[in-house]
Amino acid sequence: MRPDSTMINAFVPGAANLTEEEALLVRKRQALLGPAYRLFYEHPVLLVRGEGVWLYDAAGEAYLDVYNNVASVGHCHPHVVEATARQAATLATHTRYLHNGVLAYADKLLATFPAELGHVMFTCTGSEANDLALRMAFAKTGGTGVIVTETAYHGVTLAVSQFSPSLGPSVNLGPHVRTVPAPDPARGGDAGFAAAVEDAIEDLQRHGIKPAVLIVDTIFSSDGVLTGTGFLKGAVEAIHRAGGLFIADEVQPGFGRTGEAMWGFQRHGILPDMVSLGKPMGNGYPVAGLVLRPEVVAEFGAKARYFNTFGGNAVAAATAMAVLEVVQREGLQQNALIVGRAFHAGLEQLGQRHGCIGAVRSAGLFLGVEVVSDGAADAAKAARIVNGLREARVLISATGPRANVLKIRPPLVFSEEHVGIFLDRLDTVLTAL
Amino acid sequence: MRPDSTMINAFVPGAANLTEEEALLVRKRQALLGPAYRLFYEHPVLLVRGEGVWLYDAAGEAYLDVYNNVASVGHCHPHVVEATARQAATLATHTRYLHNGVLAYADKLLATFPAELGHVMFTCTGSEANDLALRMAFAKTGGTGVIVTETAYHGVTLAVSQFSPSLGPSVNLGPHVRTVPAPDPARGGDAGFAAAVEDAIEDLQRHGIKPAVLIVDTIFSSDGVLTGTGFLKGAVEAIHRAGGLFIADEVQPGFGRTGEAMWGFQRHGILPDMVSLGKPMGNGYPVAGLVLRPEVVAEFGAKARYFNTFGGNAVAAATAMAVLEVVQREGLQQNALIVGRAFHAGLEQLGQRHGCIGAVRSAGLFLGVEVVSDGAADAAKAARIVNGLREARVLISATGPRANVLKIRPPLVFSEEHVGIFLDRLDTVLTAL
Repeated sequence: MRPDSTMINAFVPGAANLTEEEALLVRKRQALLGPAYRLFYEHPVLLVRGEGVWLYDAAGEAYLDVYNNVASVGHCHPHVVEATARQAATLATHTRYLHNGVLAYADKLLATFPAELGHVMFTCTGSEANDLALRMAFAKTGGTGVIVTETAYHGVTLAVSQFSPSLGPSVNLGPHVRTVPAPDPARGGDAGFAAAVEDAIEDLQRHGIKPAVLIVDTIFSSDGVLTGTGFLKGAVEAIHRAGGLFIADEVQPGFGRTGEAMWGFQRHGILPDMVSLGKPMGNGYPVAGLVLRPEVVAEFGAKARYFNTFGGNAVAAATAMAVLEVVQREGLQQNALIVGRAFHAGLEQLGQRHGCIGAVRSAGLFLGVEVVSDGAADAAKAARIVNGLREARVLISATGPRANVLKIRPPLVFSEEHVGIFLDRLDTVLTAL
Repeated sequence: MRPDSTMINAFVPGAANLTEEEALLVRKRQALLGPAYRLFYEHPVLLVRGEGVWLYDAAGEAYLDVYNNVASVGHCHPHVVEATARQAATLATHTRYLHNGVLAYADKLLATFPAELGHVMFTCTGSEANDLALRMAFAKTGGTGVIVTETAYHGVTLAVSQFSPSLGPSVNLGPHVRTVPAPDPARGGDAGFAAAVEDAIEDLQRHGIKPAVLIVDTIFSSDGVLTGTGFLKGAVEAIHRAGGLFIADEVQPGFGRTGEAMWGFQRHGILPDMVSLGKPMGNGYPVAGLVLRPEVVAEFGAKARYFNTFGGNAVAAATAMAVLEVVQREGLQQNALIVGRAFHAGLEQLGQRHGCIGAVRSAGLFLGVEVVSDGAADAAKAARIVNGLREARVLISATGPRANVLKIRPPLVFSEEHVGIFLDRLDTVLTAL
């Protein structure tokens, strides 16, 4: 059986640690939301307030948020909050009436992309964006074959869950889906990536399935945060030769997080047919989207149409505009680059004193740290570190096919001072292990 | 070819009517958003502000909103706007940390349902809610067969679009989907509804497809606003006998709109296995959900899990809570009942003077008016009325398999005074036809 990497984000709360209030809320959750909901950490965190890189519990204790890719410009950024509140009080309607806000934002967003990616369509979630990409790829190519990496996560709609193997063995992959090994340095790296995609294409065709899509999270977040580059060009060419399209899933690496580029695919020197956007786009407001080459949607748009009641409504547009303004005005991509480098160096230094710290990978403020014992992946130890940090009031998680990669992904307003706090507390936790 | 009922909501703007600013925005939309986006009305409306049942254009002209099921408690209701703004400034995080807001809302929402419907799961859109319902129905039943009405609309994800025939002939129905005639009084009414569902079940089985789902919008909005009751019980029993589940899609009739009940399925005296919620839930904020019997999710939840980054986040919960408070405090269900009756009576009166007004159907503030010529459906005339009303600054639309049903669905704060304004302007438009 494959490891079920998402379970590492789904601890069963240990009754021992819980306060009375926490225990009550855990029971209420089970009663009201049912058994499909999971909480982070053996000792779940009860949060009441957020500001910048800090989250606060009911007792007023501060937690350093080193994991939140949603509140990407900082929790409750005043410029964003003000934009949401002002527009919500003015008009909150959809895209079947004319409104300037969605167009002003579309214009500003598309200016951050290569000119070939000329249109943007709005949804509410990254799942919806990938689902729409799939619908249009099926329509454009006449195929249905989908190729993804082995531990990929692309979303939770029925269609998208069928190519999100990280959801675990209880969620079936579709018969039209093929997986390829991620470019994992621990497993021979990226040399064979294009060849693996070619093999998957051939296997689809051998089964009478026409390839439609190669979709890749350009920083391979669920595959263990794999930051290498240089190997995607051949894979994109292969899917194009087979008549399929290439989708860059930028829900996790996008909006400047990698420091080196606004969009993760730019680090790879490739040009996607479609680019899906999500989590950080509205700093918590449910807005997402799909940026694409006009030729992909030309036929779909002439025959069918697309409407998403809330997607790109006036409040979504105003909020997303404010987020992009903050990213640009506050130089957050550049901050991610500089602080990310210091973070990486600090983790490597710490690794010299703690044998369980293996390889450190990073691009800007997206970092992955292998947790090992005698050189082998150690998921149990990674879980102890994640839970130990939570007790030290630092929030991160773990990921990867072997569930042993610390996933470090703070708000982009993270400073070197915050890095220092993180490293101090990690040092303490590792020493106590 | 089937009529493509959604095209009636997608007029090509007539160049003649547009101001320079409107024409510029129409061109910008096409350039930025691409060809899959459509606008309402031959002469699209450029809106800048909303308040109560009124929308305002850039010149300050007021439009009576008789169509908006999203801003259900009135545009920019101050109690809702304040809740959104306050929570957005405090904390906007997801359901993997403990937070009281989502539980308080879940509790209050579930209290409006029969006790058997014990859990609620949160999504961002009605499409996501129906998609999740399908995933769980497939997991629970082991089947994949889906039965819907002939002109149903349930959403735009790939899986849900496959059972949304109103999207038109360019969007394929799935091979596992069967349609049944809606209980349309113009086509023999509802007498044979349960028998048609039984036939569809038999046809699925004959093709080796196990029935999983019968899903019904309990006011049949896209099938022409069909307000009859009494025929669903047999259909629900039939799908249960076949091992499938019944989903009530309450995105349009829910939250008190029908006046007679908080939820449309209650008008029919039936108990669904799952209930999907959407548009009016957050008065414009992207929040939606799925209410269900615990036994539906028990196995799914034990094996798999569900996470939606924005679904049920702290701001979504606070906003939805404020909406539900307004519905209850302001007695909007009761208002829908009383004002809806006056509205119905007024339309019938108007019909005595205008031959093109055929049958009037209603449940609370959800009304459908057949537009006819010599007793036959007249889609062209319905379109002229919709566009004529827009010029008279009244916003409605049309729907139904013959695209001839005026769809009237104002915010629930609509008063008899507003009804009077609507009827006056409709009278003028009909007289001028």
